[in-house]
Amino acid sequence: MCPSRLVLEHVTSRWGVLVLAALLERSYRFSELRRTVGGVSEKMLAQTLQTLERDGFVHRDAKPVIPPRVDYSLTPIGIEAAEQVWALARWTERQVDAVQTAREAYDRART
Amino acid sequence: MCPSRLVLEHVTSRWGVLVLAALLERSYRFSELRRTVGGVSEKMLAQTLQTLERDGFVHRDAKPVIPPRVDYSLTPIGIEAAEQVWALARWTERQVDAVQTAREAYDRART
Repeated sequence: MCPSRLVLEHVTSRWGVLVLAALLERSYRFSELRRTVGGVSEKMLAQTLQTLERDGFVHRDAKPVIPPRVDYSLTPIGIEAAEQVWALARWTERQVDAVQTAREAYDRART
Repeated sequence: MCPSRLVLEHVTSRWGVLVLAALLERSYRFSELRRTVGGVSEKMLAQTLQTLERDGFVHRDAKPVIPPRVDYSLTPIGIEAAEQVWALARWTERQVDAVQTAREAYDRART
């Protein structure tokens, strides 16, 4: 598999899209982000953030305070990725009715 | 899972991206498309085309001739999908070096 394919999978993954979209608004702490994204397990969110951090899209800022405070934000290329992925996600949302109509016509023609 | 999520998965799937990109250039017959996409099995290409046709992104034109001739092309919303997905795919290709550098730094910091 070519390397860019994996990057595309990371940014378009189920939680990747939602994490990028949330961070496009502002930086978040882990627990806040989890509430904002909604429906994501702690483990999946941690894994998604780790993947996006490793790819250089998310910046993890661990502040040396007690209690520990970790903020997640987008890097400059993370912002670029998020903007494109989010535009695509919003576009697919707007197409849901058209897609549903197409599917019904397709299924009707085959029964 | 919300319906738009599935649509996003169809257009960003491994073969979905490549099929949309190819059809953005021109219409193709099945065998031509398979050669152009490269590395895709007959079964996977058929399945990808069927999914995209059912969603209303690909138009399948079966000509009543002998031997049978089937042309695949993009519908208007297929063109919109293809343009966005392809822009994103090209963008990720341009980021491969930056992503690789980020990954090496990430891995180095953890060993």
